[in-house]
Amino acid sequence: MRTMGDAETPPLLVEETIAIIGVGLIGGSVAAALKKRGFAGRILGVGRNASRLESAKAAGLIDACSTNLAESAAQSDLIILCTPVNLIIEGVRDISATCRPGTLITDAGSTKGDICRELSSRFAKGVTFIGSHPLAGSEKQGFEEANPDLFQNRVCVVTPNETTPADQLSRLNAFWELLGCRVIEMTAEAHDQAIARTSHLPHVVASALVSLLEKSHNQLTSTGFCDTTRIAAGDPDLWSAILLANASEVIQSIDELNGKLAEFSEAIANRDATTLKNLLQLAKTNRDNLGVKSCDRPAS
Amino acid sequence: MRTMGDAETPPLLVEETIAIIGVGLIGGSVAAALKKRGFAGRILGVGRNASRLESAKAAGLIDACSTNLAESAAQSDLIILCTPVNLIIEGVRDISATCRPGTLITDAGSTKGDICRELSSRFAKGVTFIGSHPLAGSEKQGFEEANPDLFQNRVCVVTPNETTPADQLSRLNAFWELLGCRVIEMTAEAHDQAIARTSHLPHVVASALVSLLEKSHNQLTSTGFCDTTRIAAGDPDLWSAILLANASEVIQSIDELNGKLAEFSEAIANRDATTLKNLLQLAKTNRDNLGVKSCDRPAS
Repeated sequence: MRTMGDAETPPLLVEETIAIIGVGLIGGSVAAALKKRGFAGRILGVGRNASRLESAKAAGLIDACSTNLAESAAQSDLIILCTPVNLIIEGVRDISATCRPGTLITDAGSTKGDICRELSSRFAKGVTFIGSHPLAGSEKQGFEEANPDLFQNRVCVVTPNETTPADQLSRLNAFWELLGCRVIEMTAEAHDQAIARTSHLPHVVASALVSLLEKSHNQLTSTGFCDTTRIAAGDPDLWSAILLANASEVIQSIDELNGKLAEFSEAIANRDATTLKNLLQLAKTNRDNLGVKSCDRPAS
Repeated sequence: MRTMGDAETPPLLVEETIAIIGVGLIGGSVAAALKKRGFAGRILGVGRNASRLESAKAAGLIDACSTNLAESAAQSDLIILCTPVNLIIEGVRDISATCRPGTLITDAGSTKGDICRELSSRFAKGVTFIGSHPLAGSEKQGFEEANPDLFQNRVCVVTPNETTPADQLSRLNAFWELLGCRVIEMTAEAHDQAIARTSHLPHVVASALVSLLEKSHNQLTSTGFCDTTRIAAGDPDLWSAILLANASEVIQSIDELNGKLAEFSEAIANRDATTLKNLLQLAKTNRDNLGVKSCDRPAS
């Protein structure tokens, strides 16, 4: 794997231009992390709202900005789409004709199956798309919430396939490592199956739980309820798109959860303390195994 | 409501002896908070394990300790049971004969219905039991984790009934206020109905969610999963007792959650983005309404 300090291969810092399409929390944090970690090239912010982009530029996050995707792509060496998942395929369509040979395109979407099936073989020879999903985020929105340490010590899943050029995969890995990530390679399908259980189902569950809350009970919530439901404050548009893009795995995981909840209900109804303790002990063991480190938050 | 600075009524600090039965995380934090906030009387730690109690005494949390409940009760002005909920009624039985007139007994259990039905009219004239539930806790255990600020700015629900003497209720409120709590009075039944939704169901859900986690997916969890499942690390014995003590409300709340999850599933299966966004928006609105303040953690 190519790393920053490897004299045999050109370091990532020689990238002349990295285009970030969608300068929100994630895109803004990519920019902030690149700046903080000494990226010496140019960061081009691309989006639909010129005044927001100008604000991000004024804030020093990006060096230049544009609302013209095709034109931006033509001047970029590496392009990362940080748009909502339902706009990634469309965004790549807008740049697919103008990329130069050698350009590497990736994304930061929470689902990978549809995107990779559609995009991994979309491009002309010499242009490569590889899916990425950095496991970092926040219920907050907007580049104003960008955090240069958002990716620090986080996992980033990359989803190459059998046609992915090895040198471009190394380049992508080096990019995420520069941002502070630990890179894991998986297939897009394995990613979606796992992330349904570790991210999408938790979002549905947190949302369902807080939906049941009567306003008069707000004052009776404590840190447990707050933590369990925190992610439900996420953007409904973004999350609707994510859940629909991973529909079958999410539905199946809801079914699995229902089965587990039924075990709890039955044990409680039967006053079966032994079974109930066993259910709670399995949960505790799994939770304890996660450790503390993976749950540390970045400084914000 | 009587407060510390009210010259008309004797301040709580004249309490000669407060007995804490069960010196774990909660009992230890009660002791630590009393010490930090200038309680001038004696703190008597009571429990079954003499060497653990001696350790708590050596750590400066309690002034004296005893494994004899009846004897401890006889020398105490205020007694708080901080044992697991399934041991509270039994614990009070052990002290009921020896309390002096004027003694106020309370608890810190997460369920109130069974306990208050059993205990509120148990005592001889002049001895009062009133249920309490401070909405503060941690997945950690043991007096070593005691935190003098655990109750700071937390709600404490107290559950008097129509026979509760007003002066003893004022005294109980002053006790919790001394520890930093905001006191809310409710019936035991209303408490259990609400806390099923704000605490017990979230514990079941967090446990079910993390039970589904395959070990190979541990590295694919992020802060969202960690927060959503944090409370599942709680003690299985304690939580089994809590869920069984509030069985009917917990079972009913699981049913309510299943209904809400089915709405999510159906919207996703139908690719109905509008309904899905509405479901997510209701959740976001409820979560945003909780505010940040109620979710702040005590410094630990």
